[in-house]
Amino acid sequence: MATDTMRAVQKPAAAPGAKLITAPIPQPKRDEVLIRVRAATICGTDLHIYKWDPWAQSRFKAPMIFGHELAGDVVEVGSDVTMVKVGDFVSAETHIVCGYCYQCRTGAAHICRNVEIIGVDRPGCFAEYIAVPAVNVWRNDPSMPPALAAAQEPFGNAVHTALATNLTTRNVLVTGCGPIGLFAVGIAHAAGAKQIFATDINPKRLEMARTMGATHALDSRDDVVHHVLAATEGEGVDVLLEMSGHPSAIDQGFRSLRYGGFASLLGLPPNGLPDFDLANHVVFKGATVYGVSGRKMFETWYQTQALVAGNKVDLRPIITHHLPLEEFETAFELMLRGEAAKVALYPHGLDGAW
Amino acid sequence: MATDTMRAVQKPAAAPGAKLITAPIPQPKRDEVLIRVRAATICGTDLHIYKWDPWAQSRFKAPMIFGHELAGDVVEVGSDVTMVKVGDFVSAETHIVCGYCYQCRTGAAHICRNVEIIGVDRPGCFAEYIAVPAVNVWRNDPSMPPALAAAQEPFGNAVHTALATNLTTRNVLVTGCGPIGLFAVGIAHAAGAKQIFATDINPKRLEMARTMGATHALDSRDDVVHHVLAATEGEGVDVLLEMSGHPSAIDQGFRSLRYGGFASLLGLPPNGLPDFDLANHVVFKGATVYGVSGRKMFETWYQTQALVAGNKVDLRPIITHHLPLEEFETAFELMLRGEAAKVALYPHGLDGAW
Amino acid sequence: MATDTMRAVQKPAAAPGAKLITAPIPQPKRDEVLIRVRAATICGTDLHIYKWDPWAQSRFKAPMIFGHELAGDVVEVGSDVTMVKVGDFVSAETHIVCGYCYQCRTGAAHICRNVEIIGVDRPGCFAEYIAVPAVNVWRNDPSMPPALAAAQEPFGNAVHTALATNLTTRNVLVTGCGPIGLFAVGIAHAAGAKQIFATDINPKRLEMARTMGATHALDSRDDVVHHVLAATEGEGVDVLLEMSGHPSAIDQGFRSLRYGGFASLLGLPPNGLPDFDLANHVVFKGATVYGVSGRKMFETWYQTQALVAGNKVDLRPIITHHLPLEEFETAFELMLRGEAAKVALYPHGLDGAW
Amino acid sequence: MATDTMRAVQKPAAAPGAKLITAPIPQPKRDEVLIRVRAATICGTDLHIYKWDPWAQSRFKAPMIFGHELAGDVVEVGSDVTMVKVGDFVSAETHIVCGYCYQCRTGAAHICRNVEIIGVDRPGCFAEYIAVPAVNVWRNDPSMPPALAAAQEPFGNAVHTALATNLTTRNVLVTGCGPIGLFAVGIAHAAGAKQIFATDINPKRLEMARTMGATHALDSRDDVVHHVLAATEGEGVDVLLEMSGHPSAIDQGFRSLRYGGFASLLGLPPNGLPDFDLANHVVFKGATVYGVSGRKMFETWYQTQALVAGNKVDLRPIITHHLPLEEFETAFELMLRGEAAKVALYPHGLDGAW
Repeated sequence: MATDTMRAVQKPAAAPGAKLITAPIPQPKRDEVLIRVRAATICGTDLHIYKWDPWAQSRFKAPMIFGHELAGDVVEVGSDVTMVKVGDFVSAETHIVCGYCYQCRTGAAHICRNVEIIGVDRPGCFAEYIAVPAVNVWRNDPSMPPALAAAQEPFGNAVHTALATNLTTRNVLVTGCGPIGLFAVGIAHAAGAKQIFATDINPKRLEMARTMGATHALDSRDDVVHHVLAATEGEGVDVLLEMSGHPSAIDQGFRSLRYGGFASLLGLPPNGLPDFDLANHVVFKGATVYGVSGRKMFETWYQTQALVAGNKVDLRPIITHHLPLEEFETAFELMLRGEAAKVALYPHGLDGAW
Repeated sequence: MATDTMRAVQKPAAAPGAKLITAPIPQPKRDEVLIRVRAATICGTDLHIYKWDPWAQSRFKAPMIFGHELAGDVVEVGSDVTMVKVGDFVSAETHIVCGYCYQCRTGAAHICRNVEIIGVDRPGCFAEYIAVPAVNVWRNDPSMPPALAAAQEPFGNAVHTALATNLTTRNVLVTGCGPIGLFAVGIAHAAGAKQIFATDINPKRLEMARTMGATHALDSRDDVVHHVLAATEGEGVDVLLEMSGHPSAIDQGFRSLRYGGFASLLGLPPNGLPDFDLANHVVFKGATVYGVSGRKMFETWYQTQALVAGNKVDLRPIITHHLPLEEFETAFELMLRGEAAKVALYPHGLDGAW
Repeated sequence: MATDTMRAVQKPAAAPGAKLITAPIPQPKRDEVLIRVRAATICGTDLHIYKWDPWAQSRFKAPMIFGHELAGDVVEVGSDVTMVKVGDFVSAETHIVCGYCYQCRTGAAHICRNVEIIGVDRPGCFAEYIAVPAVNVWRNDPSMPPALAAAQEPFGNAVHTALATNLTTRNVLVTGCGPIGLFAVGIAHAAGAKQIFATDINPKRLEMARTMGATHALDSRDDVVHHVLAATEGEGVDVLLEMSGHPSAIDQGFRSLRYGGFASLLGLPPNGLPDFDLANHVVFKGATVYGVSGRKMFETWYQTQALVAGNKVDLRPIITHHLPLEEFETAFELMLRGEAAKVALYPHGLDGAW
Repeated sequence: MATDTMRAVQKPAAAPGAKLITAPIPQPKRDEVLIRVRAATICGTDLHIYKWDPWAQSRFKAPMIFGHELAGDVVEVGSDVTMVKVGDFVSAETHIVCGYCYQCRTGAAHICRNVEIIGVDRPGCFAEYIAVPAVNVWRNDPSMPPALAAAQEPFGNAVHTALATNLTTRNVLVTGCGPIGLFAVGIAHAAGAKQIFATDINPKRLEMARTMGATHALDSRDDVVHHVLAATEGEGVDVLLEMSGHPSAIDQGFRSLRYGGFASLLGLPPNGLPDFDLANHVVFKGATVYGVSGRKMFETWYQTQALVAGNKVDLRPIITHHLPLEEFETAFELMLRGEAAKVALYPHGLDGAW
């Protein structure tokens, strides 16, 4: 390393906001690698931390550098690392898992009981450098634009949610067109879904949903259930991909689901769910419901690679802004005002932005 | 037929109660068979109809003979019937399905969109005779006691719920020890479950749960979650079989479920479900939830036959009372007072009761 | 009907060939419909019957009208028929199933133990009219070209084979590029497969495979395994769709399959399979193998409809020739010489051909 | 350690036989543990090595200590080991996997492409001590008899094979009643199978199969297919568990399988499989076939624990002989003569034998 310090965006204290600091470049442990971050995309979680909302207050321990969606170059590897090499262009799985809990030992590491999350439980990637365990590293084609490579992490959430069941030939409803919902629309399109319904209240997001392949982009304040039933011979959709966490969207989604349908849930209702009609939505309907947390390690990453590197889904329209790391406040404000879908920060210059 | 009329229990009008009537013996249609009923067991649904609760008021059209769990001898077959013969000793699937809806045409007839239910939408089996479609008939070994043969229908609900996932070697929680919950305990035991937890507030029911194979029979007013976690190294159960429909039991059940667990839901919350913690119960937990309606036609019946006729589960302790048809009021009162688990009515004498 | 007789192509006796005959127009039974055939496509099975090969000799009972891939208009319905109407433009499922065997009663009617096959066990569709059971009828959009509508039946075999597992993001190998193999390539493409390998020895077929979406069309006399491994980082394909029945292609296919892969087998080895390396192909490999017979009734048809009517797969390039019914000999000869992929016969004129 | 050397059974050179040697006690690496072996059971693989058959000649590199089914006490742990402690009573998974191949990264480590096998690729457990990676260690209840604890490894093969599908209520055929086949019979019994058919040519083995729960123990030289069909109403078994590797047993097994059945294959045909009827056994039958290698890591071990520690299957009748380590030649001879089912060797005295 030419220098021992780096610039990074830190949550300095238990209060709203963040600041640019100078911090020591981390030293990778024996089983870690040091990554020179080329791009870091901003997640909704980062916004919670920035705003310092109740979830952040209960979970995040300031002071800490945050951010977890990243891509960059490996510049140093720990002494035990054999599968990653200096020079590899990599992304990272955000969940650092224990490897010995029941879930880890039975192929369900994505719900590890002792998970540590990059940018939440340990220093994140809104920085020039980050050290992560070698087993969390995912190698990319060197030609992939760094913002795309970074966005594979949230895209992976959409992949896990959407490909939890077979979408080919199925009618699919995506409730909520934030970045992950929009990704899910693109995945359903790539998978050969029959019709793709997408709902949101933001007209820009609905327009983006159409770009990603939605055949029906619907304002969720309209009678979505009626629209869905009319377009599916009264049957309803085969698959619900719930991305919003809004109680009314969840209700709309389940009412739009056909008897015997499959619901894959990623969205989180903020304060519990009042009046969920479990009897009609699930029991009588003979529905199957699957809760999604994280990305399957690493099946989801292989699927993601096939879709992103293979150009089956173009993530570019969803990453709407590219800014140097030091303009992080502008980035957060763009997101808070709903003007940006996904924003990429570049710690070392905008090389590879579009 | 020696006579043209029969005795039957009818709901005569839109009000509580029922009465014994004389009615014409039904004539089987071309694709139907006429069954001389040997035993009819009483379902919770029959109790709703008897009490004339809000569900019954909204769904049941008096006057009509009710009852749907039956066993008897085929005494006449319609002209198109080839697979059932006079003299066959049979039970009946209660759901008469359309055969042409999407669900029927894709192996999910149990959630047929045009289902007609015996004893609810058309005359039932609390009678000396009943006509049912030949395709709904299930042939039994002639030596099976008629009350056991009749109880295969509700037992089938338990089979569908319990065998929706593999129970062998798994920790299983059954919430609610009514007859179907007790059946489920027996099925989990027969399937080689590791530990079987059962909850209820009725000590008699908990005692019956132990008889059926529960390793832990727990009062649901105690700290069930704590008990379950303590007995499973903090992991929780692999499988939840929800049989109660009680919001607090549902909550207890999901909190007792391990990360990545499977919940099979048969119980119906009476008036919607306030404050269901979808985020923690399903999404974060990476759980799979399956709603159960009816019996898979006819996979569930084959499984039921293997368990009941093969003596893998003994249903006898659950069928606590045997009465002649005309004592139906006693039967209903025994059930309303919680003194009976399952009651069998015999239109033609108590032959085969134990 | 204006007339009581019709033209039809019959296998008149136990010998090679076929002849055009005049036959009575069939009378639909109570549960049947009469269809005026607009197009009938020719299957490999029809070629076996025409050539009178050993399979045909052992199975087909001459004299009989053959052919089973059809589309046409319903012109008369039996007295019990309610779900199909005169004027409906329909295709037909070829397997007439019993409805009461174990397989039929458990959602596996495609392997009914008492199946009767149209055009093999009862008169077929190389005729102006055909009577089929109403439950076998599949209603089409009136605007669908009749040859496409008829070809949904063999396309359904490809759908059943290909969608037996999830293809989205997977590497897929199709061994054998006859019409059904080519269909499978198109389905894999529509489903968002990562790479699609297709093998055959006929360069025209390989060219058609590229048209349908194959990323690698390989001569099976070349080192296919090497090509597949080189293009998959040494891993092999995730999914094998075996369409040829050739022992060497089967061997190639399994050697190209990755550890833990899925093989879906439709092709039939003609005289048993010498020297199948079960230990290395299946056991050590931890592979899953699924045998395909017919179409899932009717899940496959819904999937087919989504792909064909929804223009996800264009079948047109595969139906290379369109001829009036009376030119059936030309049609068979084109197929025998390998000049045609799929041929459509039109009993009432070439309306709707392209 | 009180001493630096230990006794061990070594294959000294590329020739039949083995000898007792004195060897250095291994030093555990940073991520390994040292186990004082209490019992080691003998596998068929060990017999291949002892006899020096073609498989052994091609795979095993003498000189090396062999044996891989073990149980013992942890006496030393490497500096990086946190989850295993000195004093733990443990068994070991035999497959040491790489952790980074596609299979390892997608929940299929049992078919790791870079596997190293204890007792084959590195020194084994026919010794007083063995060093194994800590992640391969499985902790047992201290009260479990050491031979049972060691036999969990081969029992796990039976668990993986048998529980690859749901056995509850199913008719099951086990072809081959060596120790693993006998274990499979016990598992099917514990899982609530309907009928369990077992075949072998050795009457003692068939008698043991009855002890383990077989309802029909059949000499495979008799007409097994006829017996199976007669006992299953002509349907055949739902599940085939193939444990023999004999071509004729494989053929018998598949012919006994019902249409739509499931075959789980662990047995290895010695020299390829002549004349396998793939068309009739798999394709027409609509069968699903699953190849089994090793144990799912570690789902199979959790299932094994539930069955063995929970006394659902009693392995004791299968472990027929208990000998001190130095009597290894007697042990191998007993197995070669077919007099023993499974033999346990005890390096430190027969404590815990029965």
